[in-house]
Amino acid sequence: MAQWIWKFGEFEIYHNALVHNRRLQYGYREPPVWKIESPDSAVRFKKRVTTDGGEIWIYASGYFAVTVGTGYHDRNQYGGRSRITLEPGATEISITVSGADSFPCLFVDGVVSTDGAWSADNLTGDFSPVGTYLQFDTVSKSPAVFPFCREPLPYVRKEELEHGLLFDFGKETFAATTYLNTGDRLFVSLGESREEALDPEWSVIHFDLQPEDGTVSIPPQAFRYIYADDKTVEIHAEYEYLPLRRRGSFHTGEDIIDKVWETAAYTFHLNCREFFFDGIKRDRWIWSADAYQSLFVNRYLFLDRDIEKRTLIALGGKKPFQCHINTIMDYSFFWIISLWEYYKTYGDKEFLYHIHPQLREVMAFCRGRTDEDGFMRGKRGDWVFIDWAPMDKTGALCGEQILYAKALRTYADICGVISQFDEGCRETAEVLRRSIMDSFYDTEKRVFIDSFESGKRNVTRHSNILAYLFLPLSVQQKNDIYEHVLLNDDVTQITTPYFKFYENQVHCEHGNTTLLEQSIREYYGSMVHTGATTLYEEYDPQKSGVEHYAMYGNPYEKSLCHAWSASPIYLLGCYRAGVRNTGIAYDRFEVRPELGDLKAFNAVVPLPDGEVQVCFDSKQLTVRSTVPGGTLIFNREECPLPANRLMIRKLQ
Amino acid sequence: MAQWIWKFGEFEIYHNALVHNRRLQYGYREPPVWKIESPDSAVRFKKRVTTDGGEIWIYASGYFAVTVGTGYHDRNQYGGRSRITLEPGATEISITVSGADSFPCLFVDGVVSTDGAWSADNLTGDFSPVGTYLQFDTVSKSPAVFPFCREPLPYVRKEELEHGLLFDFGKETFAATTYLNTGDRLFVSLGESREEALDPEWSVIHFDLQPEDGTVSIPPQAFRYIYADDKTVEIHAEYEYLPLRRRGSFHTGEDIIDKVWETAAYTFHLNCREFFFDGIKRDRWIWSADAYQSLFVNRYLFLDRDIEKRTLIALGGKKPFQCHINTIMDYSFFWIISLWEYYKTYGDKEFLYHIHPQLREVMAFCRGRTDEDGFMRGKRGDWVFIDWAPMDKTGALCGEQILYAKALRTYADICGVISQFDEGCRETAEVLRRSIMDSFYDTEKRVFIDSFESGKRNVTRHSNILAYLFLPLSVQQKNDIYEHVLLNDDVTQITTPYFKFYENQVHCEHGNTTLLEQSIREYYGSMVHTGATTLYEEYDPQKSGVEHYAMYGNPYEKSLCHAWSASPIYLLGCYRAGVRNTGIAYDRFEVRPELGDLKAFNAVVPLPDGEVQVCFDSKQLTVRSTVPGGTLIFNREECPLPANRLMIRKLQ
Repeated sequence: MAQWIWKFGEFEIYHNALVHNRRLQYGYREPPVWKIESPDSAVRFKKRVTTDGGEIWIYASGYFAVTVGTGYHDRNQYGGRSRITLEPGATEISITVSGADSFPCLFVDGVVSTDGAWSADNLTGDFSPVGTYLQFDTVSKSPAVFPFCREPLPYVRKEELEHGLLFDFGKETFAATTYLNTGDRLFVSLGESREEALDPEWSVIHFDLQPEDGTVSIPPQAFRYIYADDKTVEIHAEYEYLPLRRRGSFHTGEDIIDKVWETAAYTFHLNCREFFFDGIKRDRWIWSADAYQSLFVNRYLFLDRDIEKRTLIALGGKKPFQCHINTIMDYSFFWIISLWEYYKTYGDKEFLYHIHPQLREVMAFCRGRTDEDGFMRGKRGDWVFIDWAPMDKTGALCGEQILYAKALRTYADICGVISQFDEGCRETAEVLRRSIMDSFYDTEKRVFIDSFESGKRNVTRHSNILAYLFLPLSVQQKNDIYEHVLLNDDVTQITTPYFKFYENQVHCEHGNTTLLEQSIREYYGSMVHTGATTLYEEYDPQKSGVEHYAMYGNPYEKSLCHAWSASPIYLLGCYRAGVRNTGIAYDRFEVRPELGDLKAFNAVVPLPDGEVQVCFDSKQLTVRSTVPGGTLIFNREECPLPANRLMIRKLQ
Repeated sequence: MAQWIWKFGEFEIYHNALVHNRRLQYGYREPPVWKIESPDSAVRFKKRVTTDGGEIWIYASGYFAVTVGTGYHDRNQYGGRSRITLEPGATEISITVSGADSFPCLFVDGVVSTDGAWSADNLTGDFSPVGTYLQFDTVSKSPAVFPFCREPLPYVRKEELEHGLLFDFGKETFAATTYLNTGDRLFVSLGESREEALDPEWSVIHFDLQPEDGTVSIPPQAFRYIYADDKTVEIHAEYEYLPLRRRGSFHTGEDIIDKVWETAAYTFHLNCREFFFDGIKRDRWIWSADAYQSLFVNRYLFLDRDIEKRTLIALGGKKPFQCHINTIMDYSFFWIISLWEYYKTYGDKEFLYHIHPQLREVMAFCRGRTDEDGFMRGKRGDWVFIDWAPMDKTGALCGEQILYAKALRTYADICGVISQFDEGCRETAEVLRRSIMDSFYDTEKRVFIDSFESGKRNVTRHSNILAYLFLPLSVQQKNDIYEHVLLNDDVTQITTPYFKFYENQVHCEHGNTTLLEQSIREYYGSMVHTGATTLYEEYDPQKSGVEHYAMYGNPYEKSLCHAWSASPIYLLGCYRAGVRNTGIAYDRFEVRPELGDLKAFNAVVPLPDGEVQVCFDSKQLTVRSTVPGGTLIFNREECPLPANRLMIRKLQ
């Protein structure tokens, strides 16, 4: 079956550029703040074929020229002819596509058809296998148009105000809107909150529109409320979404937990579009560490491989790699670490081959910015982030070195899988690990300090959480960290949902069986209690009312639908249902159910070719996997989990 | 005065992409065959300014966002506002432009205006001074539109044929055409020759048009004749050209020499467009070694700096450099050598700073492809060209090594001028020079052989001409080459105008005073005798009639207007008028008039800020320079050439 093909990565580069040029703020478009790559303008596709002869039809996103045969004298040039008859036998077809409005794509059908077996270059002679996705399988499904679904979305309430109308769609959504029955101008102001929609100046997304014949449309945006300064206007909205099948579920019967899970699932789905977005109102960009967390949530909700692949390709960019991903040092490391997470989940070795040239480029960039003592410090243009939190960032920052060491190990692991030279990264990682222990591990406090250069020996949750998760430590060292930092209220609390992900991960890894539920009930739960229909970018339970919506010094700039807040889906699936991939692509996995502080739950966790169902209450545990490879671990006993066998453990 | 600005190089990258996507062949568009770079999609412009306060107006090729001030907390964000009031004092203005249909350009006017003092980056933090050209000095003169001139061009003859009309414009031209009074379809076939226009199948440029309301237009193309299959059609043509002032001239009174010079000048002007083109019908691309020769012709005709600069930037491309320029190994070397030629002519040190990062990239690419013995052999995807001529290309080819050594020396010279580390290139060049002498210099024949690996010890003009011109040789070695190769009819003759350039250069350098005129009269002159109104890509005096138009196996595929055939302009100016820049930007120059085989001549040679006039006949020589710095060398005497003084030497 024929498919549209392109030079590997160009689909993602193209859509990444579109995505990054769609940000709106206060009535204007906000340009990207990091380098945005462009697709190659001309691409040559080729394949060696053997046929009995016959016709082929050629379609391309731009103009093209076809050559059949090899060698300067032994080839036929067909120019832009779209219908060609091949002679029987073996030959090579070469088709160059240029001048596309989007990016060079090719579709050939007939006795030869385009598929993943073709290769492509950007006219440099450096051919590699093409990119393709299953859904672009007919000529009419152009890869230049991202295949979203739409369905009509009625508002639930229309409120007449002094100078206009306020429409409430009942919950946060992402929809294209058409305004009917308007005058020749119309102001509309969208809001994730009612207050935002009613503030024409400070609503992040608003428009001065010039309708024609009483009608005007705007492309899909995030909103719950829409204010229009016209009392006759009618709105037709169409919800736009990526058709992902929700394969994971988690029900407890405890209202607030179930509500958080459901809200997180909806939040996450809204942010799953061309790529994993940070938020749907703002920035609608792809941030590497946000995406890293999305990989974990995705595993327990959609287990959709393609969105992970698209996101990782787009983040990696193209040569030359001149600046950290998203300009953030830690985000380059998270990208590298994410590649391994992707491979582990899907076993997609071919992807590792494809991404390796860019991975090598990124790693070379990082190593080129390493100081003589092996540590990475912020250079011109680098953002040393870790989290929005007070931290001692003097000189080398602990968390960055930990992630760098992990990235180096990951690089070596990836090279191992695809039999590439790791350029000494494994040894460099080990040397760095030892330097980290020497410089950042406080042997008195038995925890990690942020900076050894300032002399302040400041201790944060951040450095210690990252050490716990990404550094090889002994049980004793982990116990020390857990006790002296995570359970120590004198160490400043984590306030962002972003770092709550890692903190809860540590709690769960460490076997604490109540803090996850406490966090969900008190932190995420109280967010939902404010009326949130999706989860926020940041949340401070001490605030109230419109205070919740302010950020970056502006009253409504906070994203109220942010992907990194969806971590409860991952945490409940991984540490309560207890399903974890322990091999490659779940060829081995364990099910280690844990009731925690819950009374009961009924969960489904997706696997690549099946699923695991786990029902757990005070009376019994039942586990069923539709595929083999699993090990049930319960009450310190391990037993194999055969496919389609109901495993029951009575508890009383 | 405000000017449009852009990230340095992006103007050329943008127009280079347009140019390379305009090739037409046999009714279809022919895609490029080498990598075509795209402009960066988002560019950030900035400047530190001190003002008394006041307004600025902002215009951009895409959407933009403005920030005034520095530091996260000490700045004002104005989004896409196009009119901003600055507070008095010092601050920094930063404007990011994205989403342009063309490439990101900025124009700011008011109390601050855009000019070459701004800097720009592609959001990587790597700022460098912007690019700009003087002519883009008002908002309405968009850099996205290349500023050509047009003027009406009437045809000189209309011939009625059986099924249509043939229009003759009297000479080769490049013009936009509009067809009036047509039916609802029209076939037109353009020809550089009458025969080509009348061959609907094999005319390189032809169109099946669908006029609307009896009118249809096609963008500028090369032609002398146009055939239309409609007897009622009328053509309105507009000659499109780059407004270059012809500053050099050369009159001899000998009809054929003057005609060749004039034809060469017209040929060259037609090929001077966005960049130095190879030919105006085909390919209309930029080829590095063709452009190298154009630098020399330009010096004696227009001395236009900008077209050289544009061409060299476009050829250099962008990082990553993955394939030789035009895919040809020698063409990468000629590009490097050309940079020095440009610097020598205009003294533009700033350009060397600008181009240095890409130059380093190209040099690193070349050195990375060097074999252990220091020679460069063709690797996958490399075209080892030198000329269309029989040559022994086994293993390392002599001419390539000579050009490589010259490129290495040039690299070191350039680094010297801008105080950059030459990465050992000067020593590498010297080592390579010695290896060339050891391996390619035949001590018995006392000339260079093509290949030392084949054992054939084949001698060509090509290897020896390149050695003569680009390798440091002793007078004896040069004499040997001249005698044993250039004056030796047993060594296969040069047949391309491309290599005639170098061969005539050697004749002139060696002091031969008749062969240049012989070549002009017999080779170029006989080309003009065939009725050529411009000079051909290739010419074989043995052929006749339509045979002259065939190439690449097709009857009219030869370009009949090819820049590299314009070398007589350079050769006459340099070796007869004898004007040569011997310093930097003509701060020193020599005038070494030589009558050669001419009876007389009257020449003007342009200098950056003036000109040299040389009149020479059997009775006297008069020389006048409008600027100082010159040395008159005549009859083995050297004397200074003061500005605006008429120097007369009586000969009888």
